[in-house]
Amino acid sequence: MTIPKAEFADWMHGVQALVEAALERALPSAEHEPRRLHEAMRYAVLGGGKRVRPLLVLAAGEAVGAPRERLVPAACAVELIHAYSLVHDDLPCMDDDAMRRGRPTVHVEFDEATALLVGDALQSLAFETLAAAPLADDPAGSVEMLRTLAVASGSRGMAGGQAIDLAVVGKTLTQPELELMHIMKTGALIRAAVRLGACCGERADAAVLEQLDRYAKCVGLAFQVVDDVLDAAASSATLGKTAGKDAAQGKPTYVSILGTRAARELAQSLRRDAHAALAALGASAQRLRDLADFVVLREF
Amino acid sequence: MTIPKAEFADWMHGVQALVEAALERALPSAEHEPRRLHEAMRYAVLGGGKRVRPLLVLAAGEAVGAPRERLVPAACAVELIHAYSLVHDDLPCMDDDAMRRGRPTVHVEFDEATALLVGDALQSLAFETLAAAPLADDPAGSVEMLRTLAVASGSRGMAGGQAIDLAVVGKTLTQPELELMHIMKTGALIRAAVRLGACCGERADAAVLEQLDRYAKCVGLAFQVVDDVLDAAASSATLGKTAGKDAAQGKPTYVSILGTRAARELAQSLRRDAHAALAALGASAQRLRDLADFVVLREF
Repeated sequence: MTIPKAEFADWMHGVQALVEAALERALPSAEHEPRRLHEAMRYAVLGGGKRVRPLLVLAAGEAVGAPRERLVPAACAVELIHAYSLVHDDLPCMDDDAMRRGRPTVHVEFDEATALLVGDALQSLAFETLAAAPLADDPAGSVEMLRTLAVASGSRGMAGGQAIDLAVVGKTLTQPELELMHIMKTGALIRAAVRLGACCGERADAAVLEQLDRYAKCVGLAFQVVDDVLDAAASSATLGKTAGKDAAQGKPTYVSILGTRAARELAQSLRRDAHAALAALGASAQRLRDLADFVVLREF
Repeated sequence: MTIPKAEFADWMHGVQALVEAALERALPSAEHEPRRLHEAMRYAVLGGGKRVRPLLVLAAGEAVGAPRERLVPAACAVELIHAYSLVHDDLPCMDDDAMRRGRPTVHVEFDEATALLVGDALQSLAFETLAAAPLADDPAGSVEMLRTLAVASGSRGMAGGQAIDLAVVGKTLTQPELELMHIMKTGALIRAAVRLGACCGERADAAVLEQLDRYAKCVGLAFQVVDDVLDAAASSATLGKTAGKDAAQGKPTYVSILGTRAARELAQSLRRDAHAALAALGASAQRLRDLADFVVLREF
């Protein structure tokens, strides 16, 4: 694994700590009724995860000069959506996974009904967090950001990608079919993260939004390709979740379609495309470049 | 059953048809991928239900002179949240119910994983629908309405009430404990419906909002008391869902705590309180009065 530049690593750890503290404040206290639900919500969200989506929100926001006090609630909202999707994906009727981030999954640690409600309530909390924050100069900008997050989460975004993922188990997909599934399943929320970050700045230039969106599409896809490579190669201990499950479940992956070597090359090529999309943005987009490198190089 | 006044019945059927058509437009077509998910979302939402919450949105909005083109999207958003909650409540890990509105529940007609994603995607669609609509003179009003819906749906509202409901199976509750559970489980969304309707008008007077909220609290509780009476008394055919389940599952209800006669009296007393809350509002609140009567008298 390539060690990230020390300065980037400092920035990353700073953002992770900032977001962790904000999530801690956004989540209801486990002292408040219903306590078990609140305890399980906190278990699902806090103390783990790379916080890739929050990092993207902050990096995109910094590229357009947005203030951190706007970016952090937006980052929390995106992470809450991501956290809810993991809790529901792990349920027995979905991926039936017992381990996540090196700990028992929510339905194993608590119970299935609680895990269902945790996911439901985390989704509500994501929109509550976004609606409670002063995100944009103009409240119309906040409404548009709420709409962006809702579309990215729904049946034409993340939840829809998950439905396709279920439908293709045991099937052979072409690379474009696999790509479409991931564009919805992982890509939609990653694009939303970058867009929300960019929209926290002054009225964003359409050309800049377009460049950032091109970047986000490449990073989203690269993220999934790398995940597939890691799932095929890593041990459960390194991964913090059950490894090799894709193959065991007969799920088509970039590794099953392209082989490991070509999948790694694809990830590198997407990384170069992500950098190219940022060419016009200069030094302000350095964190986004660093993040593309981080996503692709994290375990290679 | 008392027959509602013909004029109210006309109004109600008109609103139900308007909301049905708007829901039909808000839901993605079953021709669009992922088709099975979209088909299941439409199955879950369309062609059934009394649409009590949309009726409350419209009635509250009419009480403050809000235009229907604002009220209908708000009504759809609330109904989408309600519909998602039914789909998840019926899942095997929750109430494990096979029948709803006289038809197989979503996980029976489709499958469990699809039902989970249907609920998830309907929640997103609710916020998308609200964020896409021009609800208030000032976009800040829209943001506040989005926040209201999110809070009402989350762990300190509907989802939290559901968690308490699960935790008390087989336990003996006092009437205040039962009331707290229902204030969260059903009451929060009914209050949000009334509030969203009222907020679609011109900048709402705080005193009026307070009166409408008092009304909504009474109607929300009355609704649950009547539900408990109906569940204990009706047959599955009349109810359109499995009857007598509360008792079979050992769930505390108003009937189990108070007996049928006292529960009916409580519903009547809440109906009078609901009317009293509207005293200062005059003729403009007539639909709200009619709705309180409709909720309480629907099957007595």
